Amino acid sequence: MRIEHLFIKRTKELPSDATTSGHKLALKGGYVHQTGAGLYTYSSLGLSLLLNIEKVIREELSKLNCQEILMPMVSPATFWKETGRFDTVDILLKFKTRAGADAVLNPTHEEIISDYVRSTLQSYKQLPFCLYQIQTKYRDELRARAGLIRTREFMMKDAYSFHTDWESLNEFYDKMLEVYKVIYKRLGLNNVVDILAPTGDMGGKVSHEFQMITDIGEDTIYICEGCDYRANKEVLTDKDADDILICPKCGKKLQKLRGVEVGNIFQLGDKYTSAMNVSYMDEEGKKQTPIMGCYGIGVSRTLACLLEQSEDESKAVFNMTVAPYKVHIISIGEDEKVQGLANDLYEELNSAGIPAIIDTTGDRVGSKFANADLIGAPIRAIISPKNLEKNVFEMKYSGLSTEYESEISTSNIFNKIKAIIKNEIITD
Amino acid sequence: MRIEHLFIKRTKELPSDATTSGHKLALKGGYVHQTGAGLYTYSSLGLSLLLNIEKVIREELSKLNCQEILMPMVSPATFWKETGRFDTVDILLKFKTRAGADAVLNPTHEEIISDYVRSTLQSYKQLPFCLYQIQTKYRDELRARAGLIRTREFMMKDAYSFHTDWESLNEFYDKMLEVYKVIYKRLGLNNVVDILAPTGDMGGKVSHEFQMITDIGEDTIYICEGCDYRANKEVLTDKDADDILICPKCGKKLQKLRGVEVGNIFQLGDKYTSAMNVSYMDEEGKKQTPIMGCYGIGVSRTLACLLEQSEDESKAVFNMTVAPYKVHIISIGEDEKVQGLANDLYEELNSAGIPAIIDTTGDRVGSKFANADLIGAPIRAIISPKNLEKNVFEMKYSGLSTEYESEISTSNIFNKIKAIIKNEIITD
Repeated sequence: MRIEHLFIKRTKELPSDATTSGHKLALKGGYVHQTGAGLYTYSSLGLSLLLNIEKVIREELSKLNCQEILMPMVSPATFWKETGRFDTVDILLKFKTRAGADAVLNPTHEEIISDYVRSTLQSYKQLPFCLYQIQTKYRDELRARAGLIRTREFMMKDAYSFHTDWESLNEFYDKMLEVYKVIYKRLGLNNVVDILAPTGDMGGKVSHEFQMITDIGEDTIYICEGCDYRANKEVLTDKDADDILICPKCGKKLQKLRGVEVGNIFQLGDKYTSAMNVSYMDEEGKKQTPIMGCYGIGVSRTLACLLEQSEDESKAVFNMTVAPYKVHIISIGEDEKVQGLANDLYEELNSAGIPAIIDTTGDRVGSKFANADLIGAPIRAIISPKNLEKNVFEMKYSGLSTEYESEISTSNIFNKIKAIIKNEIITD
Repeated sequence: MRIEHLFIKRTKELPSDATTSGHKLALKGGYVHQTGAGLYTYSSLGLSLLLNIEKVIREELSKLNCQEILMPMVSPATFWKETGRFDTVDILLKFKTRAGADAVLNPTHEEIISDYVRSTLQSYKQLPFCLYQIQTKYRDELRARAGLIRTREFMMKDAYSFHTDWESLNEFYDKMLEVYKVIYKRLGLNNVVDILAPTGDMGGKVSHEFQMITDIGEDTIYICEGCDYRANKEVLTDKDADDILICPKCGKKLQKLRGVEVGNIFQLGDKYTSAMNVSYMDEEGKKQTPIMGCYGIGVSRTLACLLEQSEDESKAVFNMTVAPYKVHIISIGEDEKVQGLANDLYEELNSAGIPAIIDTTGDRVGSKFANADLIGAPIRAIISPKNLEKNVFEMKYSGLSTEYESEISTSNIFNKIKAIIKNEIITD
């Protein structure tokens, strides 16, 4: 991408409701544009982050043999009436179609997947299995909050597993919990912990949340200073949250923190499969009800959290895996040799399929660097007449500036970049 | 994928409204499950086709420097009121949010993109540019028709270009028209023609439809038997469609055909940009209104058309680019050496990133072949005790059965498969 072609909105005057550094960076850097209350348009820069997050999720879920499917956003209301959630889930958007039918815009898909599975599952031999989708969801929130953390419309990965018994569900649940850790690690989302969570509206027995520990979190969580006990405030229901709490496991003091929930997994049991008559034939030809787990990751919220952990509202920091561009080439001055070298390097990166952005514009150097800060490519290659004269090239990587004394040439720079990328992509 | 893990619904008793071979194949092969009227769930098999189509679209649009973005599905009604389409587009789903606001579920995004562009565009230097998204859309149809051709919810690629003048729009429009031809060619969608189309509700000057000529088409189109004139029935408005029509270009007879629209492109002019006050500063610092083009591809409808052109309801035919699996490995019998060879080949294909499906189950041979017909992998590798004895391996490719006399070994089969795939993927 040539920077002059990148169509993004750079918001200079930030709205007063943009209070966190991530929200400010999202607007200042043109990652998103606000289309309505709780409704955002993702620019190519923002979408690229989203797609890179999705790619990691797909890769990791495929290791557990999860199969990606796609269910409709809109569905008949009947399914939600079968489980009774039509009347209990307040953020469910209900509407009448022009044909007069009751319909909903699904904020989650337990009912829809149960309908699919009851029409498809026949034998115990098919169990266990896990299906997932990556899809836009809508929550009809009464009040939209500012920023990208809790939007009305958002991108979600929702997975659903089906099992003959609790032992199988437990085993799969534990594996998924480990996969979630790998996903956040690969995305470079730091300070994420898994904690015991309430099952709430979803029902079921066991639940864990993945919480990013941050100053801007809206959830209260407790972490034991003695053992590894970690829980959401709601799990410790009969306690006054403002008191100093004691760990139910070891009796030591609990540390109170606030978090942002980036994932949530549940052992649902038969709540949905029973209500919706999902069944299979067991080894003896007897009809049985499978049990179920569900596993969510807020994809657009994860994006928001990645922006929150950037240095400040003017400086995006992404790892090699999620960065929209891996390399940012900046040429300084009008010198033909400088421009030629920058363009050659850009072409070579393009040919190798390495996402790069190039700035050979006549903008001031300070402005070029400020733009590069907003885009957050992990590698910055600076080509200037001064460096050319000294026969060195300059590369910033992870914030460090280095001058390399090797002969300045496209292939030297290219090989150095390739080596860094190969070294830095976290594959598991 | 091991075939016993593939969670799909194989519908034996087809519903009476499944009348086309594509619709029947979609249900019989488990590509989709019907969730509601005009609402479908895509299994991993169906979704894989969809994602492969999307990949080709992304690759081709990137050659025109189009930038992928993502706009919200739900938006405030205000934008649609600005252009007046809130009251004129009958399939627009309107609803009130819980907070009491008028909102819509966007079936197309001219209004939303215009709002994004008016907030972002500043200078003539940024023009021309083209933004696109691949997104689920909803049309609130009064009556849902059967099958996958016209569903209420569907996947769409919608692109929008912005220009200073008609010359620039014309030039880009012509390039996009050529890119569309390349896309359908790469997807292996045959018998697609571009024809003159009415501008209709969208407004604007010039429009083309891409129509797949097929017996099941619902559009009437006319093709000149003398010159290359091709038009939608609605373009020839003052004529009685059932008459023999005369080509307005050369005077020869027009041939009447029915088609399925798989794409539609428009030169919109300033209809939306004027109504929504989109502007930029020209070279002299004067405020100007850009003009606009829009370019749609029905992604899920393209999938439906690919199924329609399969041999019949029991035999899917896909090219190497779109096929969910490139290779289908079938082992015959329980022989350990046979099973070992099949599994080794499967592992080798997996390691090379070549999507393969393996059937080492104890099912009858006829049933294994029937399943393979429904899945439609272009290459079928059959490993049997008979072949092992003769030291040959058997491979079906594009319907042809061949016995190769080279020594039977995983690496020999693997190399042959790699060579075929390399040869067959259409890259442009």
